[in-house]
Amino acid sequence: MKLVIKVTGKFFDDLGDKAPLSASIKSLVEEGHRVALVTGGGSTARKYIGLGRSLQLNEASLDLLGIWVARLNAFLMAMSMPDLAYAKVPENLEQFLEYWGHGKVVVVGGFQPGQSTAAVSALVAEAISADYLIMVTTVEGVFDSDPKKNPNAKFLPRVTTAQLKTILESSQSVKAGTYELLDPMAMKIVERSKIRVIVTNVDRIGKITRILKGEEIASIVEPV
Amino acid sequence: MKLVIKVTGKFFDDLGDKAPLSASIKSLVEEGHRVALVTGGGSTARKYIGLGRSLQLNEASLDLLGIWVARLNAFLMAMSMPDLAYAKVPENLEQFLEYWGHGKVVVVGGFQPGQSTAAVSALVAEAISADYLIMVTTVEGVFDSDPKKNPNAKFLPRVTTAQLKTILESSQSVKAGTYELLDPMAMKIVERSKIRVIVTNVDRIGKITRILKGEEIASIVEPV
Amino acid sequence: MKLVIKVTGKFFDDLGDKAPLSASIKSLVEEGHRVALVTGGGSTARKYIGLGRSLQLNEASLDLLGIWVARLNAFLMAMSMPDLAYAKVPENLEQFLEYWGHGKVVVVGGFQPGQSTAAVSALVAEAISADYLIMVTTVEGVFDSDPKKNPNAKFLPRVTTAQLKTILESSQSVKAGTYELLDPMAMKIVERSKIRVIVTNVDRIGKITRILKGEEIASIVEPV
Amino acid sequence: MKLVIKVTGKFFDDLGDKAPLSASIKSLVEEGHRVALVTGGGSTARKYIGLGRSLQLNEASLDLLGIWVARLNAFLMAMSMPDLAYAKVPENLEQFLEYWGHGKVVVVGGFQPGQSTAAVSALVAEAISADYLIMVTTVEGVFDSDPKKNPNAKFLPRVTTAQLKTILESSQSVKAGTYELLDPMAMKIVERSKIRVIVTNVDRIGKITRILKGEEIASIVEPV
Amino acid sequence: MKLVIKVTGKFFDDLGDKAPLSASIKSLVEEGHRVALVTGGGSTARKYIGLGRSLQLNEASLDLLGIWVARLNAFLMAMSMPDLAYAKVPENLEQFLEYWGHGKVVVVGGFQPGQSTAAVSALVAEAISADYLIMVTTVEGVFDSDPKKNPNAKFLPRVTTAQLKTILESSQSVKAGTYELLDPMAMKIVERSKIRVIVTNVDRIGKITRILKGEEIASIVEPV
Amino acid sequence: MKLVIKVTGKFFDDLGDKAPLSASIKSLVEEGHRVALVTGGGSTARKYIGLGRSLQLNEASLDLLGIWVARLNAFLMAMSMPDLAYAKVPENLEQFLEYWGHGKVVVVGGFQPGQSTAAVSALVAEAISADYLIMVTTVEGVFDSDPKKNPNAKFLPRVTTAQLKTILESSQSVKAGTYELLDPMAMKIVERSKIRVIVTNVDRIGKITRILKGEEIASIVEPV
Ligand SMILES: Nc1ncnc2c1ncn2[C@@H]1O[C@H](COP(=O)(O)OP(=O)(O)OP(=O)(O)O)[C@@H](O)[C@H]1O
Ligand SMILES: Nc1ncnc2c1ncn2[C@@H]1O[C@H](COP(=O)(O)OP(=O)(O)OP(=O)(O)O)[C@@H](O)[C@H]1O
Ligand SMILES: Nc1ncnc2c1ncn2[C@@H]1O[C@H](COP(=O)(O)OP(=O)(O)OP(=O)(O)O)[C@@H](O)[C@H]1O
Ligand SMILES: Nc1ncnc2c1ncn2[C@@H]1O[C@H](COP(=O)(O)OP(=O)(O)OP(=O)(O)O)[C@@H](O)[C@H]1O
Ligand SMILES: Nc1ncnc2c1ncn2[C@@H]1O[C@H](COP(=O)(O)OP(=O)(O)OP(=O)(O)O)[C@@H](O)[C@H]1O
Ligand SMILES: [Co+2]
Ligand SMILES: [Co+2]
Ligand SMILES: [Co+2]
Ligand SMILES: [Co+2]
Ligand SMILES: [Co+2]
Ligand SMILES: [Co+2]
Ligand SMILES: [Mg+2]
Ligand SMILES: [Mg+2]
Repeated sequence: MKLVIKVTGKFFDDLGDKAPLSASIKSLVEEGHRVALVTGGGSTARKYIGLGRSLQLNEASLDLLGIWVARLNAFLMAMSMPDLAYAKVPENLEQFLEYWGHGKVVVVGGFQPGQSTAAVSALVAEAISADYLIMVTTVEGVFDSDPKKNPNAKFLPRVTTAQLKTILESSQSVKAGTYELLDPMAMKIVERSKIRVIVTNVDRIGKITRILKGEEIASIVEPV
Repeated sequence: MKLVIKVTGKFFDDLGDKAPLSASIKSLVEEGHRVALVTGGGSTARKYIGLGRSLQLNEASLDLLGIWVARLNAFLMAMSMPDLAYAKVPENLEQFLEYWGHGKVVVVGGFQPGQSTAAVSALVAEAISADYLIMVTTVEGVFDSDPKKNPNAKFLPRVTTAQLKTILESSQSVKAGTYELLDPMAMKIVERSKIRVIVTNVDRIGKITRILKGEEIASIVEPV
Repeated sequence: MKLVIKVTGKFFDDLGDKAPLSASIKSLVEEGHRVALVTGGGSTARKYIGLGRSLQLNEASLDLLGIWVARLNAFLMAMSMPDLAYAKVPENLEQFLEYWGHGKVVVVGGFQPGQSTAAVSALVAEAISADYLIMVTTVEGVFDSDPKKNPNAKFLPRVTTAQLKTILESSQSVKAGTYELLDPMAMKIVERSKIRVIVTNVDRIGKITRILKGEEIASIVEPV
Repeated sequence: MKLVIKVTGKFFDDLGDKAPLSASIKSLVEEGHRVALVTGGGSTARKYIGLGRSLQLNEASLDLLGIWVARLNAFLMAMSMPDLAYAKVPENLEQFLEYWGHGKVVVVGGFQPGQSTAAVSALVAEAISADYLIMVTTVEGVFDSDPKKNPNAKFLPRVTTAQLKTILESSQSVKAGTYELLDPMAMKIVERSKIRVIVTNVDRIGKITRILKGEEIASIVEPV
Repeated sequence: MKLVIKVTGKFFDDLGDKAPLSASIKSLVEEGHRVALVTGGGSTARKYIGLGRSLQLNEASLDLLGIWVARLNAFLMAMSMPDLAYAKVPENLEQFLEYWGHGKVVVVGGFQPGQSTAAVSALVAEAISADYLIMVTTVEGVFDSDPKKNPNAKFLPRVTTAQLKTILESSQSVKAGTYELLDPMAMKIVERSKIRVIVTNVDRIGKITRILKGEEIASIVEPV
Repeated sequence: MKLVIKVTGKFFDDLGDKAPLSASIKSLVEEGHRVALVTGGGSTARKYIGLGRSLQLNEASLDLLGIWVARLNAFLMAMSMPDLAYAKVPENLEQFLEYWGHGKVVVVGGFQPGQSTAAVSALVAEAISADYLIMVTTVEGVFDSDPKKNPNAKFLPRVTTAQLKTILESSQSVKAGTYELLDPMAMKIVERSKIRVIVTNVDRIGKITRILKGEEIASIVEPV
């Protein structure tokens, strides 16, 4: 299968070991899957966006700072899999397609201002006609409202894109570094190309095979 | 002033003379403005998207075909201003910024699947903190509904982004080559960076200075 | 075997299905051949050259417009074989050699002003020491005069480069977009590197294996 | 004059305002100087080198992580001077020379494993035949031993490269991220091309003109 | 005026001072001309082509070796004019056009197998609509037969392209490294774009202004 | 095993056949090893450095000339192994890593001013975690003093890096083109990453397998 795995930037916030992610991708490859990995920016991105804001950079430049940090996280993961991963981080979709043609794992940070790394992962999934886009987040999956804000949010094991859109609509924002789950661009791509999305928690990063079999907690978003 | 001019791809559909566009940009530069030009793909883009669809390409690849044609139109215009324009068409925003730093007119086609050339022009306008984004279209300006579908559509000389969003909402589509006026990505950029947008007709391509003075028919979209 | 297939730009003029070309290359690869594909520009190239001429571009720029369209056709075909073809169209011979080293089908449009796509295909054939250069044209093969101008032209199943040179000499022209069959540059490369050239009709695009076996109408040009 | 300013990575460690650095460079340019800026990696570099080490990356890869962070700092500063600085961060000396030829401020992070950003700044200074290499550090200037380790270290307003070499010799180390002041590579370049080096404190980042006039605390290293 | 100066590779064969060439270009620039310089490969090219031939490389690869050496000569001259010349040697015509747009002297070696550096200089002259293409050779100008082979060859101060073609026709060869004066490709470009060519001797490299005024020995080739 | 082979530039000085080197690498690859080849510049490098010096280029530019020639030698060897070697010569370590990921032989000339090709080979060996770095020189191996200067120098079959450092210390110089055996940068990399170095004579270029088995004259440098 062709899999796109998008990992929250928060995974890179602390100094905890990142080896489980490399190991997880390694075993997926050994099982015969092709994998593209997309990394977010996390707190380092927010630090640099903060520095940029105090230098009065415009929104495009702030987004570019966040993109650079996401690429740094991508580079770290690529370096951790020297035999498996393409040695460079593609900086746009055309470059991604060129590297992907090499039969290797391709690790991606951001592409362009104005879109989240979720949108990047949707673009990548569409371009390779991926079987699944797996979003590895800080929450358990999709809830009926933001679980970080609402402790009573209800976990949804299965949700349509239409339902998800209604849930997210109120909470979206487009200031640099503040997109959530699936921004409108990501949603559009997922819908027009009917990409199947799985949302799960970063704790389960080592269990992607089990997730694909439905043996781990995760939500599945069905495009309709 | 820093101006981004987005010209409809339909301008390149026939064999009519394209010199008025080069001349218009030349005189803007001579008046001391800096200009970025963004070109759409038009019927040639649609032809290639059609060829691609019969080859069963996915949406991302179809968009890339449209992007290539938009870049071809951009290249034609750049070649027509050898002393004024940067000799290469940037293929993403980072490249655009590099070329823009050369003090020349930069001519852009598309950047990335999933977004219209209108979104490209908004990204460019944001990145350079443009004074105006001028959309040169096949219609007179903004109407209260699509004038191509509704002959009774009313011309709106002034409209807020909020109003425009309401007007466009129903009619948006994201199949390759079918975006209209401002797609959601373009709208978002315009809103978050408060970019002033002017919409006018391709017949007035030689009168941009007059448009900026409010002496020609055009709509102004105010970000709020 | 190593094969270079040069397809006339006219193949891309209408909206007819281009799948037979992809299919043909696919089966050649499955039979164990390595394939480079070179595409011409066709009527879209002529359209843009016309637009350029009315903008008073010089010959070099007009050729570049034709080259861009040839590359667009090349990109279309590359996208139609995502598993087989290198995802980028090389823009010069050095880039071609880099991509060719990846073991994939490489699809090429033009390289440089002043030479036809026939010359491009000869350069490519020489650089990879190809077994055959197959020119897929709008005619049945080589005739004793241009069959488009002379209805009594006689088909020649076998011709030496020396004979062909005599036949073509009178009719050659170097205005952008008007080269025919083999321009002088192509001829020279074919001669100095003794490249075997086969000329056949675009209708037989799905029968290249049969052509190689001599079971289909085609002319063979022998370098001497 | 042609100036290379190397700023310690520690300058980017906190969220304090970085505007004094941009302002300082801006006024140097307005005074007619040409400026290249080289930024270190600081604590973010050390964080990523730590992450890399727990992933068991080799020394070359760890250095590359530090280089990426230095480039991120460089990019931040380049973005803060959109009218003055070249919009891209060069990744090696040849690229640096290309950008430098544009007459703009060029901002550089690291180039290559095995050398400190001090070596990068010496390479840059040599390549442009700079008048001064100004090292903006966390200390007041050159001391007769490392002032961070020895509170009784004596400040040296003037020192030859030969003397400095003797002072630094014992304390040098080449583990990624642990070079100090001038590593052997930097020293060699400084010596062979007789580059004049000034060492001063990051607090005086806004007073470089005064430093050049000898009106601020700083050490000058004379090549002999 | 826009001038293209093509210097024989033999100029780089010995260790004699190359400063007169840099000085000559410098004074042309100071007089207000724009200059592109094209360098041949000379004996070092022939050495490497010889090494390649004993390694049984094909003609394309041999030409590439000669091209690399021509680029090395170009790089030497570019480095000798750090304030005047673009710091990189373009490797194809599109890159040349990009660098040329920077307003600097651009120094070129070869572009592509199958053509001489004379063809390169003609392509460059056409692309920038040059006023003159000045060929700086080992002979005094154009003769009625090759002066190296025929001591009685008659010097021709003025010759049409048609006449020159007749003169050269017999002696042309296309083995790597053996083109002379104007190869067929160069001739074609010169003819189709009516480029005025001046042929003179390398001894007069410091007198190009005088040559342009007709005050030094040189032949002028008139395109008809 | 992963092997880095560094061949002295002097190997390319004469017109003698270079096929034994290609053949040697071919057989190493057939035995299952991965190979990176690093070539020096030799007398052609010295010629161009001489030309540059008479043009008063600075040390950085002189080094770049030497680097270009080393790359030319690298390109020659890459072209001689079209099926085995990556078709381009990487110009820095990051590019090297990208090409190396393709599973091919990668041939490298120089990277950057201020370091010898020996340093380049050490950087490459470190980056790929090579098993051995094999230095193919004009001498038999390591001696207790420079055998070119001291005819009584004693051959050392086994030496530690610490011992070698002591031996070389006095004789090192950093003028362009005059580094010897292992410059300080190379030494540092070898030490910090504990790279095993073998030094042997260019006459044994066809016997690398035997050298690895200890069956040919060579010195081994042990990092301690
Ligand atoms: N309310 C509206 N007011 C004005 N135009 C509208 C409105 N709703 C839809 N449109 C459409 O927006 C289009 C804007 O013109 P334009 O030619 O730029 O289209 P385009 O598809 O973006 O072109 P291209 O992508 O080829 O550059 C018109 O075709 C118009 O019919
Ligand atoms: N003696 C000849 N035998 C065969 N074809 C000839 C001869 N002389 C001229 N021609 C012309 O050569 C052309 C070869 O066909 P083809 O379609 O490949 O042309 P093309 O101009 O190279 O196309 P493109 O440049 O768009 O790829 C035909 O148009 C044919 O009329
Ligand atoms: N004799 C000395 N005189 C002055 N500084 C010394 C001396 N010996 C060692 N040092 C150290 O050199 C360092 C120079 O400061 P700086 O902040 O530039 O360090 P750095 O490691 O190069 O930073 P970065 O690599 O992040 O840019 C100081 O930390 C200082 O302690
Ligand atoms: N009729 C002619 N008049 C003048 N020169 C001629 C003629 N026929 C042949 N030649 C040759 O053309 C060559 C032009 O000189 P030049 O040194 O430029 O040669 P080149 O091979 O192009 O050099 P490079 O390729 O190394 O740049 C001379 O060697 C000369 O002998
Ligand atoms: N103690 C020593 N043992 C062996 N060689 C030594 C020693 N000291 C100096 N050398 C010199 O090191 C050189 C190593 O040979 P090699 O040909 O590789 O030189 P090189 O300068 O690195 O070549 P290039 O830079 O052109 O690749 C010899 O010229 C040798 O004289
Ligand atoms: Co559109
Ligand atoms: Co530039
Ligand atoms: Co440091
Ligand atoms: Co020549
Ligand atoms: Co590749
Ligand atoms: Co050496
Ligand atoms: Mg043709
Ligand atoms: Mg040497």
